[in-house]
Amino acid sequence: MPISECRIRRRVHFYEVDSAGIVHFSCFYRYMEEAESALWRSAGLRIAPTKEFAYPRVAAAFAFKKPLRFEDEPEVLIQVASIGRTSIGYRCVISLNGDVAAEGSMTVVCASGPPGEVRPTRVPDFIRERLAVLS
Amino acid sequence: MPISECRIRRRVHFYEVDSAGIVHFSCFYRYMEEAESALWRSAGLRIAPTKEFAYPRVAAAFAFKKPLRFEDEPEVLIQVASIGRTSIGYRCVISLNGDVAAEGSMTVVCASGPPGEVRPTRVPDFIRERLAVLS
Amino acid sequence: MPISECRIRRRVHFYEVDSAGIVHFSCFYRYMEEAESALWRSAGLRIAPTKEFAYPRVAAAFAFKKPLRFEDEPEVLIQVASIGRTSIGYRCVISLNGDVAAEGSMTVVCASGPPGEVRPTRVPDFIRERLAVLS
Amino acid sequence: MPISECRIRRRVHFYEVDSAGIVHFSCFYRYMEEAESALWRSAGLRIAPTKEFAYPRVAAAFAFKKPLRFEDEPEVLIQVASIGRTSIGYRCVISLNGDVAAEGSMTVVCASGPPGEVRPTRVPDFIRERLAVLS
Repeated sequence: MPISECRIRRRVHFYEVDSAGIVHFSCFYRYMEEAESALWRSAGLRIAPTKEFAYPRVAAAFAFKKPLRFEDEPEVLIQVASIGRTSIGYRCVISLNGDVAAEGSMTVVCASGPPGEVRPTRVPDFIRERLAVLS
Repeated sequence: MPISECRIRRRVHFYEVDSAGIVHFSCFYRYMEEAESALWRSAGLRIAPTKEFAYPRVAAAFAFKKPLRFEDEPEVLIQVASIGRTSIGYRCVISLNGDVAAEGSMTVVCASGPPGEVRPTRVPDFIRERLAVLS
Repeated sequence: MPISECRIRRRVHFYEVDSAGIVHFSCFYRYMEEAESALWRSAGLRIAPTKEFAYPRVAAAFAFKKPLRFEDEPEVLIQVASIGRTSIGYRCVISLNGDVAAEGSMTVVCASGPPGEVRPTRVPDFIRERLAVLS
Repeated sequence: MPISECRIRRRVHFYEVDSAGIVHFSCFYRYMEEAESALWRSAGLRIAPTKEFAYPRVAAAFAFKKPLRFEDEPEVLIQVASIGRTSIGYRCVISLNGDVAAEGSMTVVCASGPPGEVRPTRVPDFIRERLAVLS
């Protein structure tokens, strides 16, 4: 059964909070990636680069709605929004106690080739069998 | 004379490079913020929160075009794209040897109020006198 | 009952792994801090700075024995090794499947005073009642 | 002429400052590594792992004396303290306007072997010709 979404909870660490007392915005992209890693794991896949494939990010965006603070335990939901010929698109919602903290998106491409010269390649079947667009 | 853009060069550090040998995408948002800090500094301003004002980010996005690697020295250009009642919008281009590595944008709001309850407030005059939309 | 140690498990994230394929050494200090935060939480305390107290680090060290990799789930053990007049000392062992990955230590001081001018102060009783040196 | 020390200046970034308003202690280890990268560059070397050699850290320590803040421009001095059969030891002093902010040390080993199974190996001659213990 292919997987279309994954939900993780993770606690905000002290080193992620800036001098305004809120999670630094750059960390939200890392939270989104943690959820993507969990999604792939739950689908029996690994997002880490191999000799054959790498999955560089080609776009990522967030709209920030409410701040997160030290020791908060936000939920990070990631959903497969699209699977194209060479790319996978995600939607991401980060929330705290039911309130949306941030809404984001990310697009990754499948790439292969010699190190330093990777090029987009068709999303391979072993991924298509395990990830599916959320219907 | 109000300032509309700023250009910095900065070297890629070892700890910013991931296991695919390229700068982790989350670092691009930090590079954009470094350029914003430099822009404000060159305008005689400080982006750090004070008792009166904080400048939380409400949106940030990047499209990634080419990877950056260890010891590369990309240029980060940030431009004031808009100044609204409570928000400032930026455009950002990160390039290496003339090639665009990433194009991004960011929106910050001016906020004030008691800690933990800040609300958007009018961009104050001391900022409007020092930053101007790129014409 | 005062607390003397705490054990957490946490997964290695993709963005913590460097281009040699192993967790960047600077992240071990963050793992140690995560365990310290958990220790304080389990003792009913918060390591975050307040108006009255802050807990700056005055020393931290690690000896690295074995690398950690993406998706590993190391265990981080932190123990209260000493409580002095103004400082608290910790011992830390990070291990994977029973093998020691790193052994470290950290000393923090209790500090108080106006922002930017904090000075060491006696470890307050509400902390002494909740943390105890491992016997 | 072999190189024995290197001095860099670098500005504190907003995302390096924690909620106590000071540079997070884990960033000092990154500053030390930046100075090491600069030392190697100035000696005509690269600290990045290659097919033949990697340079994992086996120990790193800091004693923290004074805090660093946003937009400070500390100086980071790194010196080659020892070159053993398989390891290189550094001393590091981070200072601001002549005041010591932190004193540290780091030991790296030269390692070679198949990925995931590297073992300590003799510091090769091309490194011994370019780095020398500070006399």
